[in-house]
Amino acid sequence: MRSAEMIELWRGGRPESLHRGHAVICDSKGVVEAWGIPDTVVFPRSSCKMVQALPLLESGAADAAGLTDRHLALACASHNGARLHLDAVRDWITGMGMGDDDLRCGSHLPRDKDEKRRLICSDESPCQMHNNCSGKHAGFLTLNRHLGGDADYIRPDHPVQMAMRQTFEEVTGETSPGFGIDGCSAPNFATSLRGLATAMAKFANPGGDLRGQAMRRLVDAMRNHPALVAGEGRACTELMRAMKGRVAVKTGAEGVFVAIIPDLGLGCAVKITDGATRASEAAITAILVHLGVLEAQHPVVDRFLNGPITNWRGMVTGEMRTAAGFP
Amino acid sequence: MRSAEMIELWRGGRPESLHRGHAVICDSKGVVEAWGIPDTVVFPRSSCKMVQALPLLESGAADAAGLTDRHLALACASHNGARLHLDAVRDWITGMGMGDDDLRCGSHLPRDKDEKRRLICSDESPCQMHNNCSGKHAGFLTLNRHLGGDADYIRPDHPVQMAMRQTFEEVTGETSPGFGIDGCSAPNFATSLRGLATAMAKFANPGGDLRGQAMRRLVDAMRNHPALVAGEGRACTELMRAMKGRVAVKTGAEGVFVAIIPDLGLGCAVKITDGATRASEAAITAILVHLGVLEAQHPVVDRFLNGPITNWRGMVTGEMRTAAGFP
Repeated sequence: MRSAEMIELWRGGRPESLHRGHAVICDSKGVVEAWGIPDTVVFPRSSCKMVQALPLLESGAADAAGLTDRHLALACASHNGARLHLDAVRDWITGMGMGDDDLRCGSHLPRDKDEKRRLICSDESPCQMHNNCSGKHAGFLTLNRHLGGDADYIRPDHPVQMAMRQTFEEVTGETSPGFGIDGCSAPNFATSLRGLATAMAKFANPGGDLRGQAMRRLVDAMRNHPALVAGEGRACTELMRAMKGRVAVKTGAEGVFVAIIPDLGLGCAVKITDGATRASEAAITAILVHLGVLEAQHPVVDRFLNGPITNWRGMVTGEMRTAAGFP
Repeated sequence: MRSAEMIELWRGGRPESLHRGHAVICDSKGVVEAWGIPDTVVFPRSSCKMVQALPLLESGAADAAGLTDRHLALACASHNGARLHLDAVRDWITGMGMGDDDLRCGSHLPRDKDEKRRLICSDESPCQMHNNCSGKHAGFLTLNRHLGGDADYIRPDHPVQMAMRQTFEEVTGETSPGFGIDGCSAPNFATSLRGLATAMAKFANPGGDLRGQAMRRLVDAMRNHPALVAGEGRACTELMRAMKGRVAVKTGAEGVFVAIIPDLGLGCAVKITDGATRASEAAITAILVHLGVLEAQHPVVDRFLNGPITNWRGMVTGEMRTAAGFP
């Protein structure tokens, strides 16, 4: 048993590149379908932001701070840093009497073209709110205020991150073998891909308890505000729009992608072995079509999976395809 | 026999991503060392630009046009589109009484930060000379003038591209199974990775004939003008600088990298299966260290192979490593 061939790139009528990976689909009872090795240990990276948002709700911090679904969508987001996101995160943080310096995510140029252009052409440096994870960190700050922890909320033994670990292990059903430091400086806990899909299946089958209510609110926030979760043209946003809010999906760095499908009671997790985003986007698209929740004819399927690849003069040079047997 | 594990990315003390691939080292007699499958068919993409420059020299076109080593380095380049490159390509093309419209490579924003910023902030569109392949295309235009072909020099049955195919098959020692259209719209002929390494070994062991002289001039042009072949900070440029001109190296899209090592009479070709440039850069760096032509302690080795990976706040989050058994 090894990783599965998943996504191929063809040129001139022959395969040029190949992405291998693992994918697991779970319902509330366990694995219902898998490719590759479900026990593969992965870092979920940003794909588990909805898990990291659970303590924000379950602690009562979100309600105490009056957070809306828009805030919750941002807490689950890897956003583009467009004005839409920046204004919302700024309002959130300043509303708590805090500022950019209270964040610990670091700064990077935003993906949003207009905002990036504005920064570059005005010789302005990006701030931490531009970081694609600033919504998650605003959630950390909100939880931290509620818990009364010190300012260094990303420290692995800080109450905020202890809550993250406990929640993560509860929803994956596994003791995490350890953590890595994520791009945004927060700990990111490792799990098997089966554990990540198990967590997503729990989000797809929420109970009536406190956790179930929190899961339902987060999934609704994501699928009702797809533009807040990523941005125009991004896979998360466009896939959720294409499925008209029936499914919540989330990308993670190094080739991770997850899906929560309440209609079917299914959760799904994908890891591309080589970490390529183009392949994780294509693989989750293929699985969503396979499960019947995304129409094969929808333009978004051409965009992220089997559409033609064109060059600088618009000539078709090849195409992306699913490998034989996947999905 | 299958692809070899080559480059790993680690985070939090465990592997996060893995790149598989193939690599072949040849001398003038054949394969001397290989990882993965030497018979794997690949598109060399831009890694074979020095092969595509041979007809320019062998036809007499380069000398008739008074081309210097700087022109030849640009013909072999995938450049950044910095002023250095733009000015040289513009002088070359206008010197023939032609202009940007005579190119067929298409336009894209340059990788060079200053020039990209200038274009973006002045609302100016990039021209075809900004295309990283514009030096190769200036070479095509020069050859085409010499051959008297029509303006559509990228057509697969055009005399310029017929010369490309014939030369490519001669130096790889294989009949190409076909071609794909490259990002710059020119045909790119497929070959086995062994064939590509065989071609590089011929460049490393040039004879005294017309072809050998052309090969020697092109290798010298590349290693004497590393900044023209790519640009500041790029792997081709920095690796050639680090080896003080002893070795010529060239990247190609979708995870291809080649090296020509005249001191050892060796040619090398790498293809990362998934097409990742970060891995092809790391793999060729590892092989150059393995062959003793690049010092393991040189800063460029940390930069492209086993240096720490840091995040937006400068924290070390992991590192890149060679997989067990490679090289």
